[in-house]
Amino acid sequence: SGKLWGGRFVGAVDPIMEKFNASITYDRQLWEVDVQGSKAYSKGLEKAGLLTKAEMDQILHGLDKVAEEWAQGTFKLNPNDEDIHTANERRLKECDVLFPGYTHLQRAQPIRWSHWILSHAVALTRDSERLLEVRKRIDVLPLGSGAIAGNPLGVDRELLRAELSFGAITLNSMDATSERDFVAEFLFWASLCVTHLSRMAEDLILYGTKEFGFVQLSDAYSTGSSLMPQKKNPDSLELIRSKAGRVFGRCAGLLMTLKGLPSTYNKDLQEDKEAVFEVSDTMSAVLQVATGVISTLQIHRENMGQALSPDMLATDLAYYLVRKGMPFRQAHEASGKAVFMAETKGVALNQLSLQELQTISPLFLSDVNRVWDYGHSVEQYGALGGTARSSVDWQIRQVRALLQAQQA
Amino acid sequence: SGKLWGGRFVGAVDPIMEKFNASITYDRQLWEVDVQGSKAYSKGLEKAGLLTKAEMDQILHGLDKVAEEWAQGTFKLNPNDEDIHTANERRLKECDVLFPGYTHLQRAQPIRWSHWILSHAVALTRDSERLLEVRKRIDVLPLGSGAIAGNPLGVDRELLRAELSFGAITLNSMDATSERDFVAEFLFWASLCVTHLSRMAEDLILYGTKEFGFVQLSDAYSTGSSLMPQKKNPDSLELIRSKAGRVFGRCAGLLMTLKGLPSTYNKDLQEDKEAVFEVSDTMSAVLQVATGVISTLQIHRENMGQALSPDMLATDLAYYLVRKGMPFRQAHEASGKAVFMAETKGVALNQLSLQELQTISPLFLSDVNRVWDYGHSVEQYGALGGTARSSVDWQIRQVRALLQAQQA
Amino acid sequence: SGKLWGGRFVGAVDPIMEKFNASITYDRQLWEVDVQGSKAYSKGLEKAGLLTKAEMDQILHGLDKVAEEWAQGTFKLNPNDEDIHTANERRLKECDVLFPGYTHLQRAQPIRWSHWILSHAVALTRDSERLLEVRKRIDVLPLGSGAIAGNPLGVDRELLRAELSFGAITLNSMDATSERDFVAEFLFWASLCVTHLSRMAEDLILYGTKEFGFVQLSDAYSTGSSLMPQKKNPDSLELIRSKAGRVFGRCAGLLMTLKGLPSTYNKDLQEDKEAVFEVSDTMSAVLQVATGVISTLQIHRENMGQALSPDMLATDLAYYLVRKGMPFRQAHEASGKAVFMAETKGVALNQLSLQELQTISPLFLSDVNRVWDYGHSVEQYGALGGTARSSVDWQIRQVRALLQAQQA
Amino acid sequence: SGKLWGGRFVGAVDPIMEKFNASITYDRQLWEVDVQGSKAYSKGLEKAGLLTKAEMDQILHGLDKVAEEWAQGTFKLNPNDEDIHTANERRLKECDVLFPGYTHLQRAQPIRWSHWILSHAVALTRDSERLLEVRKRIDVLPLGSGAIAGNPLGVDRELLRAELSFGAITLNSMDATSERDFVAEFLFWASLCVTHLSRMAEDLILYGTKEFGFVQLSDAYSTGSSLMPQKKNPDSLELIRSKAGRVFGRCAGLLMTLKGLPSTYNKDLQEDKEAVFEVSDTMSAVLQVATGVISTLQIHRENMGQALSPDMLATDLAYYLVRKGMPFRQAHEASGKAVFMAETKGVALNQLSLQELQTISPLFLSDVNRVWDYGHSVEQYGALGGTARSSVDWQIRQVRALLQAQQA
Repeated sequence: SGKLWGGRFVGAVDPIMEKFNASITYDRQLWEVDVQGSKAYSKGLEKAGLLTKAEMDQILHGLDKVAEEWAQGTFKLNPNDEDIHTANERRLKECDVLFPGYTHLQRAQPIRWSHWILSHAVALTRDSERLLEVRKRIDVLPLGSGAIAGNPLGVDRELLRAELSFGAITLNSMDATSERDFVAEFLFWASLCVTHLSRMAEDLILYGTKEFGFVQLSDAYSTGSSLMPQKKNPDSLELIRSKAGRVFGRCAGLLMTLKGLPSTYNKDLQEDKEAVFEVSDTMSAVLQVATGVISTLQIHRENMGQALSPDMLATDLAYYLVRKGMPFRQAHEASGKAVFMAETKGVALNQLSLQELQTISPLFLSDVNRVWDYGHSVEQYGALGGTARSSVDWQIRQVRALLQAQQA
Repeated sequence: SGKLWGGRFVGAVDPIMEKFNASITYDRQLWEVDVQGSKAYSKGLEKAGLLTKAEMDQILHGLDKVAEEWAQGTFKLNPNDEDIHTANERRLKECDVLFPGYTHLQRAQPIRWSHWILSHAVALTRDSERLLEVRKRIDVLPLGSGAIAGNPLGVDRELLRAELSFGAITLNSMDATSERDFVAEFLFWASLCVTHLSRMAEDLILYGTKEFGFVQLSDAYSTGSSLMPQKKNPDSLELIRSKAGRVFGRCAGLLMTLKGLPSTYNKDLQEDKEAVFEVSDTMSAVLQVATGVISTLQIHRENMGQALSPDMLATDLAYYLVRKGMPFRQAHEASGKAVFMAETKGVALNQLSLQELQTISPLFLSDVNRVWDYGHSVEQYGALGGTARSSVDWQIRQVRALLQAQQA
Repeated sequence: SGKLWGGRFVGAVDPIMEKFNASITYDRQLWEVDVQGSKAYSKGLEKAGLLTKAEMDQILHGLDKVAEEWAQGTFKLNPNDEDIHTANERRLKECDVLFPGYTHLQRAQPIRWSHWILSHAVALTRDSERLLEVRKRIDVLPLGSGAIAGNPLGVDRELLRAELSFGAITLNSMDATSERDFVAEFLFWASLCVTHLSRMAEDLILYGTKEFGFVQLSDAYSTGSSLMPQKKNPDSLELIRSKAGRVFGRCAGLLMTLKGLPSTYNKDLQEDKEAVFEVSDTMSAVLQVATGVISTLQIHRENMGQALSPDMLATDLAYYLVRKGMPFRQAHEASGKAVFMAETKGVALNQLSLQELQTISPLFLSDVNRVWDYGHSVEQYGALGGTARSSVDWQIRQVRALLQAQQA
Repeated sequence: SGKLWGGRFVGAVDPIMEKFNASITYDRQLWEVDVQGSKAYSKGLEKAGLLTKAEMDQILHGLDKVAEEWAQGTFKLNPNDEDIHTANERRLKECDVLFPGYTHLQRAQPIRWSHWILSHAVALTRDSERLLEVRKRIDVLPLGSGAIAGNPLGVDRELLRAELSFGAITLNSMDATSERDFVAEFLFWASLCVTHLSRMAEDLILYGTKEFGFVQLSDAYSTGSSLMPQKKNPDSLELIRSKAGRVFGRCAGLLMTLKGLPSTYNKDLQEDKEAVFEVSDTMSAVLQVATGVISTLQIHRENMGQALSPDMLATDLAYYLVRKGMPFRQAHEASGKAVFMAETKGVALNQLSLQELQTISPLFLSDVNRVWDYGHSVEQYGALGGTARSSVDWQIRQVRALLQAQQA
């Protein structure tokens, strides 16, 4: 492949991955909307009696010709967030694989792999909801505000709005020419979304270490080392993680630029466009790479299973006692004693005999054996949102319904 | 008054202004919701058969007694944004005072004082709308998510939700215990809102200088200098402006803390509460002081009027030619030549004779005199959102309607 | 000139001003240092016996040919900070013009124009000092650190250091390959420097308003309005002010990317270079434009003089009483009473008669007349750093000496 | 211990750890310096003839009495950075334990544990150097600058400087009263230092997972889970990591507050003190907890050794060929082929026979066996800064020398 690390790798690198950081020319992105605006404005001028019908037609025709020449490459606000959900859904077939859930990066309780996937899908669903709210506030026509005082030529702004398919018109000409809320909101939306993805990336980077061994990235989303021939690095995930800084830096920069600015237009505001375009491109790339990584990820079921250990059922042991009528605080302490006893004896928690357990509490009976079954454990957590199969199915239905409602 | 600058001032300082930075004990704020949660959870446990009816009643009774003891001082998310609108509205009586509108801090076109007020009111209306969206996403019950896997005791989360009057329940237990979107969103909401106020404060600080002389702060919102006896400083506005940095710093800090964190709970997340409480208190103070400043502000009509100068009508002069059929680009150039001619001759723009104007364009006729009327100027901008009286009235109705809809 | 605002302007726009935001290709910037590094490394390999002398010569020759082809356009760390000092110095000829010093944007005390210039020059001198410290820590050779473990081929890193003229070598290979302190430091250095310039720009924007009228930007650093023919906007200063946000956003982004990253190299670190190059170019442009603005600025002495008013001498009136033996607290109150009396009577502070003053304090004698002289006022503040002529001269000598010491 | 997780833990929690977030009253911190300043100023006034000797003595006596009352609890700028170096040094006894060095969190090459410790010590040494530079710029006397114009009473600022043991005096009164460089610099210093510690914390959190198993925190720096009895969470390290966000948030907030502020004093600047005090306390706690964690950390040598695997010697295998005369690019590819061959055959890299290796390159001879020795591997990297024992010793000497020079 010509790359220095070509000795060991098979398969091409994803082209999206390759152009992850490719530069973009921004100006083109504004041309299309510019033409649309000019056409609507011409119609407004004709209605206000400032252009004849013939003049208007001539202008419209000219603008159409211009538009034809660069029909490609326009700005897409929607950063493909549907695709990542599609990808997520595809993975849900691996629903019933169990592996350790962590808190503080310490093994906590057994969970389903699908439950982990859904935890990230749910966060992205909120991002998707927020993007629609931002779009609603972008969908407001500023045209007809002049430089500060409005329009004196009798232009009908409602006509312009309808012509350009905006949802509403701006209320105040001074505010309209200088507010950058939609820029700030979009940059923050992106910051929070990529921060979510940075956390998902962090999980996957850890799960892909030799030490965890739960997942393996496809070659398309890994790169080799130019020094160390044995290495396969999760560059795609590291780049996703790093972009959280870059994107939020843009948001911080804009807010700082806005702070204390006199109202109405000041030249400072010209910092807005480059920020939006760069962040829009970054988000588009980040979401596509994230989708690709998830779509092609291999999971190692055996390693996942082997990482489950009986001490992760200590909470279930406490709940066992709760069901027998013991208050949780005492049950937690009793289970803690069992953990300590097992550690002291050098055995696994599930290898303590019933007699040994009964020295801690007489409520332990032979049915305690059922606690030591990981599948039984996850099924216990049947409340909505928990690890039980029924809950996972419910989550999938909920996320689907939310996304469908958003597209309506 | 005991203050060092007491020699010249009359009237007390607003008590809110005095405690602008007072420190707050945060813990109290969480107690009330804690009791509510405990009561609902007890009901859930009773329904799940884990508490008897008698045990539940005993617990509920005890919790009620605790609650009685600190019925005061609870956390109010709504930072009084209604009040500031009320204040804004009161000022609208000064509707028809004219003064210079600025862009780039250079005099641009005559505007109404009410139009300036509305430009800030409209921005705050968007903030209000956004706060409702944030509240919608806070209004989701996480209870029943356990530490990571959910609840295994058959608790009915829908019952908990109804009991605690939440709008929805969290979908995934891993996400629920570790997502801090609502914190990040609230901090950003506050950052954008106080950035808006920083711009309004900057305007008023400028308008209150000796050089502009448009407004005067009441003594309650000014302080003197411990060195310079003649001074009266707009400390209240400077503090509002400065808080934009402080509030956004909290937002930046939280995002940075979240970046790259493994999913589920990590101790890092305990940084969230102090940030929310501090920002909530800061916003409450900022909005109250802003309301007080606006409510008690005096405007100097004469200074406002004297600051209007005929060159600010150069745009109207260009529009005059447009109405006579000249394309705007040529009209702009013709008006520019008139400005240059007046500068060269050392006269005001409106003192050029008709003959002189006609050397620039034959389209100038005797009706050009109507251009030199500031009241006529603002009335021209009749498109929605402009400076005409009808537009200002429309803006007030729109803002009122939006705020009423938000309260529904 | 073809620009829409061409009707009234004379003189060309500064070419630097025109390309203020021009995009740059970054890669070229790294080629030169790359060649230097390769040459030194070849010598190290020859010394370690891994290359023959002939092989080394061949490599060195080839590298020289490559280098010849792009001798232009290399990265210059030094953002021309000397130039701005040169410019500042040139302005010091206007040493003895007096105008109001402001605190809280309220007129405070008379100061020299040169004292204002020096207040910004002193801040930039600290920036210059800090840049040297950053450079010292950049001036450390990382070569020979491998990917993580160092170099196993017996390369003499001291030879590489001497060959490449670095000041020191990195101490630890793991740290060397992944620390980005020099990037973070440089970005913060730039953030603080451009924040200083944003404050100077804010001053000049205000001083250039019609209301203040103290300064006038040259046409080369102003632009017109495409709508309002009479306008001349300080775009250059607004852009300087806005860049503070952009530059600090980069700094914030990098710190967030670094936070919590596992030590040693991770792909996240590739965000560093673009940030450095962009900020370096931005600073270069900002400093050049600031220099140009200051160099070509016109000051309006008459307006400056007319803005001085007797109430700005109230502090001096208090000091007058202090010199007569009154404690400052009482003197401040007495002077405040005089201000209040003058306001009540509707006269200027210096128009109170001696008899009127003596109703406030018997310490007022006929020599109080000397207080009402602005030139006398600034001469009083003779302590080092104050407004007296001797102090201003001392400041100039100090700044010069510091800059010379920095260049040593 | 009364804590909910008391069932299993032994040993008390470090008291510093307990008060990690304790609140502090800030005002007290300014009193001491205030008294010192007042005393020096009295001497200056006496020298200027504005106080008699007797008046001065009376004032000095009174101030001394005030000072006695709160001799405790003063502000310490130096956040105990020496202690952390002492702790680091103590750990260097574990010099020769080997474990995997990671890049991209993938096992890269064998390194010494001491080399890892030193990589962080070297970063902290730079922080220590930077703090001295910040201190140098704080060590400048502003007294005698008045509110804007300086001091008119003939006070000798050099005398004040000597009296208060400052290193220099401020140069310009307008700059002196409003520049906050030392605040910004200190906040950024802290941000970078705690970012370094966040990376060290991240390493240790990973090394302390069950999956890595390299280190174990002492009970004093861990906490249990109120739900899961088997857990022991690295809260101390997570809090260190989280503070990077909090501290940098303060830095971001201050810079944003400073942006675009008119020069000289504005009330906005009062945001500075709380930021400094909070960050100073946070850094003090972070550095103490970091010191405690490192001092009491246990390392698991066996796990470290078992985590080394022959494929981590693939780079050494390539270097073996380089030493035989093969260019590195080819050697890297040959070693990559060996890795691939071993993977395909399902054996470890060091289990390939000489014959098998020779199918890849005839340069492989029987001495290739020496490559498969981890101790031999780290000794190879003998260039300064590498993993060889001699280099580690050199690093310790260098760090010691730097710290001693800093204390001079």
